[in-house]
Amino acid sequence: MAFSEQELLSLVASVFQTQNTDDQNSLDIVVGIGDDAAVVRGSSQLVITTDVAVEDVHFNKRWSNAFDIGRKVTAANIADILAMGATPQYLVVALSLVGDEGLERVRELAEGIKHEADKTGAHVVGGDIARAGAISIAITAIGSVERAITRSGAQVGDGIYISSLTGWSAAGLHMLTNEIEPVHAVHAMALNEFRAPSLDYGIDFSPASALTDTSDALLISCQSIAQASAVNLHIDPALIENAYEFTELSLLAQSVGIDVFEWILGGGEDHVFLATGVDLPGIRIGEVRQGSGVTGLEMKKAPQMWRHFQ
Amino acid sequence: MAFSEQELLSLVASVFQTQNTDDQNSLDIVVGIGDDAAVVRGSSQLVITTDVAVEDVHFNKRWSNAFDIGRKVTAANIADILAMGATPQYLVVALSLVGDEGLERVRELAEGIKHEADKTGAHVVGGDIARAGAISIAITAIGSVERAITRSGAQVGDGIYISSLTGWSAAGLHMLTNEIEPVHAVHAMALNEFRAPSLDYGIDFSPASALTDTSDALLISCQSIAQASAVNLHIDPALIENAYEFTELSLLAQSVGIDVFEWILGGGEDHVFLATGVDLPGIRIGEVRQGSGVTGLEMKKAPQMWRHFQ
Repeated sequence: MAFSEQELLSLVASVFQTQNTDDQNSLDIVVGIGDDAAVVRGSSQLVITTDVAVEDVHFNKRWSNAFDIGRKVTAANIADILAMGATPQYLVVALSLVGDEGLERVRELAEGIKHEADKTGAHVVGGDIARAGAISIAITAIGSVERAITRSGAQVGDGIYISSLTGWSAAGLHMLTNEIEPVHAVHAMALNEFRAPSLDYGIDFSPASALTDTSDALLISCQSIAQASAVNLHIDPALIENAYEFTELSLLAQSVGIDVFEWILGGGEDHVFLATGVDLPGIRIGEVRQGSGVTGLEMKKAPQMWRHFQ
Repeated sequence: MAFSEQELLSLVASVFQTQNTDDQNSLDIVVGIGDDAAVVRGSSQLVITTDVAVEDVHFNKRWSNAFDIGRKVTAANIADILAMGATPQYLVVALSLVGDEGLERVRELAEGIKHEADKTGAHVVGGDIARAGAISIAITAIGSVERAITRSGAQVGDGIYISSLTGWSAAGLHMLTNEIEPVHAVHAMALNEFRAPSLDYGIDFSPASALTDTSDALLISCQSIAQASAVNLHIDPALIENAYEFTELSLLAQSVGIDVFEWILGGGEDHVFLATGVDLPGIRIGEVRQGSGVTGLEMKKAPQMWRHFQ
């Protein structure tokens, strides 16, 4: 071990400490990092989610730097809070390290986490560090909500919307695994989306009847809303083909001999939001109908799913 | 992989589901396992803590069965909530599995978590499962508190108290690493305390001026209160020698050639509570004085600390 646990804790605490004192929300934190647990101001309804990311499964040191890994794992977590229509407030981070990481890399990881948390005003209020055989990062995010938007509220007649086009992260992964050089701007965009997907923070899906994120894959997310709401999600591929950025992604897919719908429907890891409702912003991709399951994609090749655990 | 992620999630959800519906507190859970995040009833002040336990570092499959591992990791987490004078309410569990575990062992692990959570009325409301090179379990516990008891409130003149005698877990670890057969009841007690330490739920330390748990080691906990409160913690070894169970632990230490104070002060992993205050229950072990650091133990051998990260 190149450093002591105490050095490590001080370093991580110092990265997150700044965040806790330099804005008005610091008043929400009664006891921060350093005691047995954090004490924070609560709310009448809490939203809680946890996500663990493991090296070589969810991220890869050869492909992403520590800052981006921190961002990516944090974004995945915050996405689950936003996908309930809630406001992220607090994060705790359980970090498993191998022990050969330099302090500088741990600092970059912490700064990536803080960077992403800052975007939504969330605070890292606690954590734990352990030694393990591989790096893994388990983050728990806690938020507040007045009206939670679950997957079960879709109504017949609702439109189906995505906050932006999915598939970019899968395109980036394809480039990395096939060692394709990023010669065009579109390549850089795909790589960037894979390394640290940008969450669609700007979209207002608060009037949605059902909401989820698409981190597993757009098709899986559609299926989960269909099942939870006991409705049919009818997707119109022509609507997707008209979407902003579809042409770019499609040309990229074509250049490597991939059906672009494999990336869009089955890619996953995008953290785009999927909503049903009336006159929502974003990209309309279909309609909620009576029935079950997901239809309209019969002509599309069955996408290869991105699964962590198979 | 002997089973699919879906089978695994259903299994774990079914173990925790029972808990969420079979008592009155189920009304606190608005959205349970299965959506993007859980939604629960909040409170004005939240207490949040996270703890990660890694196979071969914090637990060992050869020494503990899955049920006990689940209990132990959960107890460690709940101890941090109780150590703030708070009431544990919700848990989320991020589980990394190697993939060769049978479903039955995963069920036992989940049941161990539930068993320990049930003792304090806490509910498992969410989780995540990933594949990794080694088993690890990251739990985040959330509780509510009106008056948090930190490590910084110790007052000169306060007594120093422990909820029960520390060192039993270290004794159990010593037996296991040295392959000592459990021929006496006291051996079984030590092994049991190592495998799944019983938390001192019964003790009422709510009037304490400072409170922490002793999972790192009693001496470290004393030092942390001394530092946070800017006082001296003067320990009287004679008071410890008069404590309930001291004779048994002492004879056990003697039989294996160990100074019993090494286990008591430096053993760790006990989840006994350390408090300062006036006329508290438990075992009085010393007094808070003006000054700094921990004194009174000069005649005792410097204990070998239990450190996970060195």
